[in-house]
Order: sequence, then structure tokens, then C-alpha cells
Amino acid sequence: METALPDLEDGEVLVANRYMSVDPYMRGRMNDGKSYVSPFQIGEPLEGAATGEVLASSCPDVPVGVTVLHHRGWREHAVVSGATVKIVDPALAPESAFLGALGMTGLTAYAGLMYAAKFTDGDIVFVSGAAGAVGSLVGQIAKASGASRVLGSAGSPDKVARILELGFDAGFNYHDGPVVDLLKEVAPQGIDVYFDNVGGEHLEAAISVLNTHGRVAMCGAISQYNATEPSPAPRNLGTVIGKQLTLQGFLVGMYADKAEEFAQKMAGWLADGSITWDETVRDGLENAPAAFIELLRGGNTGKMVVRL
Amino acid sequence: METALPDLEDGEVLVANRYMSVDPYMRGRMNDGKSYVSPFQIGEPLEGAATGEVLASSCPDVPVGVTVLHHRGWREHAVVSGATVKIVDPALAPESAFLGALGMTGLTAYAGLMYAAKFTDGDIVFVSGAAGAVGSLVGQIAKASGASRVLGSAGSPDKVARILELGFDAGFNYHDGPVVDLLKEVAPQGIDVYFDNVGGEHLEAAISVLNTHGRVAMCGAISQYNATEPSPAPRNLGTVIGKQLTLQGFLVGMYADKAEEFAQKMAGWLADGSITWDETVRDGLENAPAAFIELLRGGNTGKMVVRL
Repeated sequence: METALPDLEDGEVLVANRYMSVDPYMRGRMNDGKSYVSPFQIGEPLEGAATGEVLASSCPDVPVGVTVLHHRGWREHAVVSGATVKIVDPALAPESAFLGALGMTGLTAYAGLMYAAKFTDGDIVFVSGAAGAVGSLVGQIAKASGASRVLGSAGSPDKVARILELGFDAGFNYHDGPVVDLLKEVAPQGIDVYFDNVGGEHLEAAISVLNTHGRVAMCGAISQYNATEPSPAPRNLGTVIGKQLTLQGFLVGMYADKAEEFAQKMAGWLADGSITWDETVRDGLENAPAAFIELLRGGNTGKMVVRL
Repeated sequence: METALPDLEDGEVLVANRYMSVDPYMRGRMNDGKSYVSPFQIGEPLEGAATGEVLASSCPDVPVGVTVLHHRGWREHAVVSGATVKIVDPALAPESAFLGALGMTGLTAYAGLMYAAKFTDGDIVFVSGAAGAVGSLVGQIAKASGASRVLGSAGSPDKVARILELGFDAGFNYHDGPVVDLLKEVAPQGIDVYFDNVGGEHLEAAISVLNTHGRVAMCGAISQYNATEPSPAPRNLGTVIGKQLTLQGFLVGMYADKAEEFAQKMAGWLADGSITWDETVRDGLENAPAAFIELLRGGNTGKMVVRL
């Protein structure tokens, strides 16, 4: 859809988008109904995080030429209020990293592990969707923070190979058998933390393998997003009582007050090489819908972005 | 089964049991398999909390004539180590209350509400099994602690009438329809805390009605204890993420350090009449198994005890 760019009003800036974030949570906004974010409207452009260069500005704080992070992705040019953008320093990391490891994706991984799952030194950590944008960071943050063992599941042999390269101690391809059997094989001493990006069978398997006082950070349920019937799992929720488990659902917004702490730690981990991040880059706005569908099918490794 | 009483060894006491506690958690110990307490052994007596009078003692700290709380119920006379009994003051409350409101039952209700569910002033609280020993105390503790509204479900019109007498703001008989519909009717503003004694359909309904940042204290799942197939509920666990809910499984042992705080508060509430407790009393050891089966079927109101 083409529209004419409006004139800038006072305080607005015109941004040429260069990178757009493609995120699983957008699937929820494509359903009608009450949720934590409003549904996308048919006929209106999608929205999402993006980075780009300021081409014109009527906001003194955001001069022409700077690179900004903002929330009007899914279009080539965006007119946004200067007060809502964040100027980023492309010398610190490649521009797209501000959509990923240094952005909401990274904060989701960090705060989910540290605060939702109350990670402590020595924990055995299991992550599903471990080759994904959030999952691959969770595993590396856990390793960098003193986990005794980090395990991951992913959807292909290539992805499993990749998480082992990233420093996971073990991993499995969840297509290779019942998840609970695969998990028990790599976790003979059980697990203390489960970071759930997947829901369904994975959550049931994790509950069954979690040790006493184990904790689950419930971050996503991508296995369920396209489902038309509710998942019948987990069927073992009663064991949450005897094992005294905590299941914590969370959204990254709960942990906005941890953004500063996160940014400092992540900058350090990226600088000393303890954390690396993967990207799957697709080119062109016209390929963005396909990139989104690919994401839901697990076609990405690491953060999925579209370059314009 | 009759056995001869052994001679007392040094430090032991002989107790004539007067009241025995009959508890839902015992059902779990009748299954074989790994759990948080070891299974009962066939041919061996059951165990459980009991109170009684000391008939003979070779433990100087526990003289003949005192009333004690101990863990060798399900028998008429018990020989126990004096170090493991607790002397109680029958002037403070009827002896059986030390098995209920002033005992583990009360601590379960108090700590589960306050610490597992992180109750805060003004919360709307929903309790299942609300006419039971734990449930009826949870509701009354919530009212006494500043809940804006306390709702309960129970299994008969008489029980619903009883919880309203105890001060619950509303209640329903869960046999009257799908639990989620009944709950929505009494909770037009949703709920903030769910104290779960039941599991299954109740838990699913509560998750669907819980407000953002709501909390579930998972205390029991009596609907599941005799089930031979795992429950397929809750099917809406994915919504735990967007609503940022916390599900906390707990056993009373987690909160042993709250026993003193609890005992003081409960003594105050009992003394000023803000909390009353119900008992269902059955007479005679020979009727104890029937009392246990009755308990699992919901035949009790309040604490189920057997008087010898």
C-alpha cells in the first residue's frame, strides 16, 4: 500500500527505515479479542520495532542523520514523534543489534531468566526455541552467569549444532521423539529452570523433569499460536504442588526497570565475546510477510529482521 | 490389627490418642511411586497427626497427664519419642483445634494465602473447596486481612450456605454448571488470587477469570487424586503469559518459618471471633477408613477428625 508522506508537524521526525523486527508476539495481534496488546486493524499497516536514519526533523533533540530505534516498522518511511524514538550509536554494535541482543529481545531473555525464573548460580537451565532470538540469548546469559549446565531444544539438526557452537552443553531436535524422553536423556539430574518459548508438550516435559523448587519463566507458546483447539497439555500440572514449582508468566514490560542493568551487562558480554548473536536477514518490505510466516514455522536462526 | 505395646525406651512416651486428623494428602501416600512423602506400606499402620494424653513417660520433658500433638495417629495407643511431640494447652482451644485451625491446616491456609499467593490488601480472592478445612480458613483469613471480596466454591447447597455464614461474600455449588460460568457470575471484576484445593476444571476457570498479575496458590488437586487418566485441564495455560500470572505450587513445610507469626495471628482471630472453624467428627478407629473415603468424596464440612 502506498500513501503520500504527510508534512512534519512540530516535534516529528521522518525516518527511512533500514531494519524491521519480525516477532512471534505479532501473531497474537492478528487475532481479534482481548489481549495485552490491541489487535492489528485490517487495512492499517502492521507495527513493530524498526531502526533507520532520520531524513527530516522538526524535533531539535533528534537531528537529521542520526540512527533511531522506534515503533513504526512495516513501512519504508515513518513519521514519528521525536519524543518516542531512541537515538542509538551504530559504533557500539551493528544497527540491527538494537532490535535484537541489545534491544527488547535481549531484555526479554535477561529479565525472564533472572527475574521471572529467579536464576541462581549453579542452576541447570533448559530453554526451548533455543536457536531463536530470545532462546539463544537465554542460554548464553545463563552460561555467562554461572549455570552448571545449559540445555536447549530446537527444530532441526542445524539449529542444534548451532546452539552447541554457542556454548550450550547439550541440545536435541524435538522432532526426534517425545520431548520428555529427549529431555530426560540430556538432563539425568533434572532441571532447575525452564525458559519456555514453546508451550504445549515442551512445558509438560519440563514440569515432569523439573527438580523440587524449580521455576518456569513462561515467555511464549509458539506451538499454540496457530492452533484452533486449545492444547491438552500439560496434563501433569498437579505435580507442581508436590515439587513446589513456580510458573511465572511474563511480558518484557514487567521488567522495564531492569533495562539499564541489562544494557550494561549485555554490552560487557558482547564486548568480551561471551555472547554472540545470530540473525536471519530477509531483504525488502515485499518479503516481510513471508519472513513472518517463516518465523512462525521456525525457519529462522536467531533474530529475524527485514532489511529495507 | 492388634499389637502388644512395647516397653518404653529412654525418652519415649505412651500416648492414648483422642483425636486423629484425616487429610486429603494421605491419598497420595496410597499410590506407589516417587513423591514428596514416602508411600504407606501395606501391612503397616497409616500415619497422621493426632492428639492425646500421655499415659506413661520416660521423657522428663513430657510428663504423664499432659496433652500432646504428635504424628502417630491411626492407632489407639502410640509410643513416640518425647522429642518429636508438642505439648499443647487445652485451655487455649479444644484439643482437636490443634489438628485444625491452630495446626498444620491453619498454617497451610495462612502461609498459602500470604506467601504462596502473595495476598495484598484489597485483593479479590477465590477459594475452591471453600467449606473444607483449609478453604474455610483461607476465606476467613482473607476477610480478616483486608480482601475486598472473597468468593468460594463448594459441592453442596448446605456447604455454600455455610461459607456465607462464615463471611464469604459469595459462593456457588460447582455442580450447578460449568465452573467458569458460575465463577464469572460471582466475579464480574475478575479475581486477583485463586487458592486452589481442587485442580482440573476449577483451575482452568480461575486462570480464565484472573486479572493481570494475578496469583494462584496451588495447594491441592483433590479432583485428580482418584483419577486414573491425567486431567487435560487447564487448556488455557498460554494466557498465563499475557496476564503475567504466577502459579505457585507449595507444601506447608516451605513455610515452617512462618509458624510463630501464624500462631500469634490465628490465636488473635479466634479470640476476637473473626475466625471460627468447623469440624466433622466421626467416632471410633473402626470408622476412620470410612471417614477418609467420605473426605475424598467431600462429605465433610471443615476439618475431618476421628475421635477415639
